[in-house]
Amino acid sequence: MSLVFYSNTDAPEPWREAIRAALPSLPFHVWPQTGDPAAVRYTLVWKPPAGWHGRFPHLQAILSLGAGVDAILADPQLPPGVPVLRLLDAGLSRQMAEYAAYGVLHFHRRMHEYALQQRERRWEPLAPTATGDFAVGVMGLGVLGGEAARHIAAMGYPVLGWSRTPKRIPGVKCYDADDLDRFLAHTAVLVNFLPLTQATTGMLDARLFAKLPQGACLVNLARGAHVVDADLVAALDSGQIGGALLDVFHDEPLSRDHPYWRHPRVIVTPHVAAVTLASEAAAQVIANLQRLERGEPPLGAVDRAAGY
Amino acid sequence: MSLVFYSNTDAPEPWREAIRAALPSLPFHVWPQTGDPAAVRYTLVWKPPAGWHGRFPHLQAILSLGAGVDAILADPQLPPGVPVLRLLDAGLSRQMAEYAAYGVLHFHRRMHEYALQQRERRWEPLAPTATGDFAVGVMGLGVLGGEAARHIAAMGYPVLGWSRTPKRIPGVKCYDADDLDRFLAHTAVLVNFLPLTQATTGMLDARLFAKLPQGACLVNLARGAHVVDADLVAALDSGQIGGALLDVFHDEPLSRDHPYWRHPRVIVTPHVAAVTLASEAAAQVIANLQRLERGEPPLGAVDRAAGY
Repeated sequence: MSLVFYSNTDAPEPWREAIRAALPSLPFHVWPQTGDPAAVRYTLVWKPPAGWHGRFPHLQAILSLGAGVDAILADPQLPPGVPVLRLLDAGLSRQMAEYAAYGVLHFHRRMHEYALQQRERRWEPLAPTATGDFAVGVMGLGVLGGEAARHIAAMGYPVLGWSRTPKRIPGVKCYDADDLDRFLAHTAVLVNFLPLTQATTGMLDARLFAKLPQGACLVNLARGAHVVDADLVAALDSGQIGGALLDVFHDEPLSRDHPYWRHPRVIVTPHVAAVTLASEAAAQVIANLQRLERGEPPLGAVDRAAGY
Repeated sequence: MSLVFYSNTDAPEPWREAIRAALPSLPFHVWPQTGDPAAVRYTLVWKPPAGWHGRFPHLQAILSLGAGVDAILADPQLPPGVPVLRLLDAGLSRQMAEYAAYGVLHFHRRMHEYALQQRERRWEPLAPTATGDFAVGVMGLGVLGGEAARHIAAMGYPVLGWSRTPKRIPGVKCYDADDLDRFLAHTAVLVNFLPLTQATTGMLDARLFAKLPQGACLVNLARGAHVVDADLVAALDSGQIGGALLDVFHDEPLSRDHPYWRHPRVIVTPHVAAVTLASEAAAQVIANLQRLERGEPPLGAVDRAAGY
């Protein structure tokens, strides 16, 4: 039995070293090498091509190198019945919470407006908003969204949360699926942590933006496909949305002619809100491999029907 | 007896209302009105002109509308023996800590480099630094610097502190005056909270910048006069300093031809790191007036010789 590693963005070496040290009898192949496909029990992958998993007839688990598994689940030929395991290590969720906190501080402290003033060499102090009066709305309250919501609440902000299935998080005012409009009406900055599913694709559109208070801001560190780009640009141009900090896009890398690059109210970062570091994440992958080897249920298994 | 209010930036009305409600028998004059100068016991001021206080022969206390008292102390005609009281309310120190945290996150998450990439429409993820490996150096560990150091340490950053007089702060590695070089050598982002005194004027110069690791960044929310501007611009141009977030300047408003406005590695904000809000700060001013009226020692008295 063996493991095959597939990623165009993660270096295999730190993973090979960490897994060899813990599981010396498990061969570690880096695609395009696979050894005997029939011997492959595990894959450790980031964005494998559609159909790729079909070559391994005795697969027992698919381990994701990241928290997002939509690229894996989007494969129509994904072998049925094989568990898909998300990586949910402490490092990733902390990095995500940090990025979210940065976005909240950026918009709360009106840094997007001061940046525009700086372009014009204009010195104009703007009225501050007390931290306790700046409501942060977190959409998606899973492991990552929940952690970010707690982190931002600990900074003194009032935090509202919205999720499809009702959640309870101490210090966070949680809204149900039916209460989306009330959630949006009270949100000064919207932080998107939704999973990408059929129901959430294109959810951040003109109708949703119109339900936010005028000048509300957006932080997107979930998926580009949650956003209708043309609607966001129009909302930024009209002033309905005051500014956007975007880490994820429909197509990555973002094409050079996309209007986001040059929009004065948009900050583009190249999908770096959370970067899986082998040094931080290998322990979780190894623990899961050891559970599988012992025949125990693995952690982080995705509900394929729900999509997360 | 009466109080005279002087500020070109703070609105007097919220102060008048709050003080009248608490001390209805204390007349509240807004400069240029003073009533009988001999009846004035207190001034509540922000940046009064030199010599201004000399007109009140029976002054008992000078209450600052902010934490910085250098403009008051710089007056060579300041009446001797009259206590100068700094405003040190919770709101100010929290705002300062927030601004400092924003700067730390900005440089830790390499937002200054992603901003330069965005100008070129360049998509290039940069290697992350684990939070635990990004050392924040706080210069000045008084009420404001100490609060910011604690706040940043709680976010998971290693925090180093430097102050003229030795300090002990839980979770902060404090360096003595003699140990400045070692403090600087380990600092990835320098956060300036120094008081402005003869000894600290111009302290952030080429010699000091050269002792930081290459590419270290600067957050200045103390006073512009701590920085030798030409040295900072040179250090930014050489890459010795990677970026600067500046809230304070030698002359404010910053003149339109100052190179900071257009420097691609400088963020200019118009002295807004902490804005005194009458709603948050009036309680502390009133408590001090009541202590003075009862003949008790006031809080926040400045050591004029030390300058803070």
